Amino acid sequence: MTLSELSSNRIITLLTDFGYKDSFVGQMKGVMLSINPQVTIVDITHDIKNHDIEEASLLLWSNYRYFPKGTIHTAVVDPGVGSERKAVVAEIDNHYFLFPDNGLISYVLKDKSFKAFKIKNKKYILKQKSTTFQGRDVFAPAASWLSKGVRIENFGKEIKNLITFPLKEPKLIKDKERPKFIGHVIHIDKFGNAISNVSIFREKPKEVVVQGISLPVVNFYVEGGNSPAAVVNSDNLVEIFLYKGDASKVLNINKGTVIEVLIDG
Amino acid sequence: MTLSELSSNRIITLLTDFGYKDSFVGQMKGVMLSINPQVTIVDITHDIKNHDIEEASLLLWSNYRYFPKGTIHTAVVDPGVGSERKAVVAEIDNHYFLFPDNGLISYVLKDKSFKAFKIKNKKYILKQKSTTFQGRDVFAPAASWLSKGVRIENFGKEIKNLITFPLKEPKLIKDKERPKFIGHVIHIDKFGNAISNVSIFREKPKEVVVQGISLPVVNFYVEGGNSPAAVVNSDNLVEIFLYKGDASKVLNINKGTVIEVLIDG
Amino acid sequence: MTLSELSSNRIITLLTDFGYKDSFVGQMKGVMLSINPQVTIVDITHDIKNHDIEEASLLLWSNYRYFPKGTIHTAVVDPGVGSERKAVVAEIDNHYFLFPDNGLISYVLKDKSFKAFKIKNKKYILKQKSTTFQGRDVFAPAASWLSKGVRIENFGKEIKNLITFPLKEPKLIKDKERPKFIGHVIHIDKFGNAISNVSIFREKPKEVVVQGISLPVVNFYVEGGNSPAAVVNSDNLVEIFLYKGDASKVLNINKGTVIEVLIDG
Repeated sequence: MTLSELSSNRIITLLTDFGYKDSFVGQMKGVMLSINPQVTIVDITHDIKNHDIEEASLLLWSNYRYFPKGTIHTAVVDPGVGSERKAVVAEIDNHYFLFPDNGLISYVLKDKSFKAFKIKNKKYILKQKSTTFQGRDVFAPAASWLSKGVRIENFGKEIKNLITFPLKEPKLIKDKERPKFIGHVIHIDKFGNAISNVSIFREKPKEVVVQGISLPVVNFYVEGGNSPAAVVNSDNLVEIFLYKGDASKVLNINKGTVIEVLIDG
Repeated sequence: MTLSELSSNRIITLLTDFGYKDSFVGQMKGVMLSINPQVTIVDITHDIKNHDIEEASLLLWSNYRYFPKGTIHTAVVDPGVGSERKAVVAEIDNHYFLFPDNGLISYVLKDKSFKAFKIKNKKYILKQKSTTFQGRDVFAPAASWLSKGVRIENFGKEIKNLITFPLKEPKLIKDKERPKFIGHVIHIDKFGNAISNVSIFREKPKEVVVQGISLPVVNFYVEGGNSPAAVVNSDNLVEIFLYKGDASKVLNINKGTVIEVLIDG
Repeated sequence: MTLSELSSNRIITLLTDFGYKDSFVGQMKGVMLSINPQVTIVDITHDIKNHDIEEASLLLWSNYRYFPKGTIHTAVVDPGVGSERKAVVAEIDNHYFLFPDNGLISYVLKDKSFKAFKIKNKKYILKQKSTTFQGRDVFAPAASWLSKGVRIENFGKEIKNLITFPLKEPKLIKDKERPKFIGHVIHIDKFGNAISNVSIFREKPKEVVVQGISLPVVNFYVEGGNSPAAVVNSDNLVEIFLYKGDASKVLNINKGTVIEVLIDG
């Protein structure tokens, strides 16, 4: 059975910067349910900072992998709406993605192949198309038609290149005495935990240095006691936290802050 | 097939000022799912400013039209809860609405006919009725019973008049040299865009004046560049924005701020 | 029919302090839908103050009772994640609950019997278990397997004692002239209403005293007019409010503030 044969009653996820206080999300859901009343819509978040394509890209990556294959992920952070930027539907890693071609797909696309098409076919988008809200007029109806089994080839012309922003990888410094990764903070979560781009899959790092301060690496939050510490988090990323406190405030950490992760040689 | 025959497995939307941090919304959903476990509940927003009936009315209007016919819209912004204000179920424009009779239905009702009934029948509301939370005790159960096919005639006595607040229409000034609409701002969205009550369905306006400043009217946000500009938005309303900025802050625009929309003669 | 035979297509509720801007909730929903795509997931709230087990416990209690019997309530406020604290599944009052054994179940458990089991069985939790996010790795998959009919006995060893924090009960002062309850504020809601732990099921109290000020007890909010007043709210708790205002600010009320509720002798 191919992906596009898993057609009926699919799951659509939504990830936007539209917030919770306006009509954006409600209108998108109305359009989706009008086309396919059986679809299951799951909000990932609508609280992406206005126009923050990089944060949206990171959260899309960290979420999609936990959904069943064939899930339709609709991500709309779209400052260029109405301009010539493309609206895209793509199949990547056995999931579907709909997104503006502005870099949003960067994290998901890393090291992966894709099949992508413009969303242009008038059968699958709203007739009275606005220039300011293609989330409702293009992405919502296309996602819902996809959930009814329309093949991605039918939405428009194939696209061979997708726009991505450079993902700054951590550097491995092969110093014999103090081998380490130099990375940076990519996200501050609700708890004030600072999540870095340093992935650790094997042994626990020996130490983390941030803002000139050396932090121990512990196994779970309670172990940190009353001082900031580091942990390998649930996405296998090195994370700086303060148990029952706000590490980002205490250590003055922001997105982009450099961290050093000392490892075994 | 009539509306009330589309009875099973319907969609209920929720629009309230109950927020996301208390028990109000959870209790309403629990009541609805206890009566009809098959119903699909869609949150429009729960972030209406406390008791802001006018904002709720606007958002209800801008959302309901995108849902399938027969959708049950439950809107509860209800400072008068427990007093003599009526709880109403109505059929308008092929949708169902449940709401307190306090003006909330004003935008939806404009130029439309309605059939409305009190929600009084004890079969379709909770027995242990509180005086402070009819969202849970009256509107939630009534909406859910409606989703199971109960006819609106069965909820209580017919109501011939609904309370509405005056919708200040923009004025058309037929000046030969500078014909224009004078309207006002009715909503500030999450992005700081200021949405006015001036509807434009035909040609793009020539110019918009707000706070003594003249703004160009562009086709989409990117075209605005680094300066505030106006656009006809996805609800066909004239909207003032600043690309990647906050127009309402930069221009000191609030709800009620007057705008002039210059049009072709 | 027993609870565990009501197996298919169940409802899972979620109550956490994970917020709306990160990947926590999305990942949990992805895991749940991967195991049981038919499950209905209902967000109670994700806006519990970081690590506030007591508030989570209160909201869990005030919500669960409105859901159908057999509903699966997943509550994760879990500062001790990764440590030796137990992950629990329990049957209480004909509902299912999954929660960390840290006191979160206190309000629900009051005066009730329970059957509880550790969540340990590797069949029903994720393989690649992190130490920082058991909401995703343990509670989400266990809840979803439960929704598919797995019996709670199969998740792990039985637990005979659950951790609870002391629920400070209001004191009844049997003064002949001024009999009263002395209680305290347990929650401030979005409207600034201050909810106390004083339950009233029979007659309306005569008067409420807070911060040295005597307040009338009215039947519904409008009756309060322009001054703070008290009401017996929709959970049968004495609540202090200011009609269209914020009583907690005006009277400087916080969680823990003492209130006196004067009653008939």
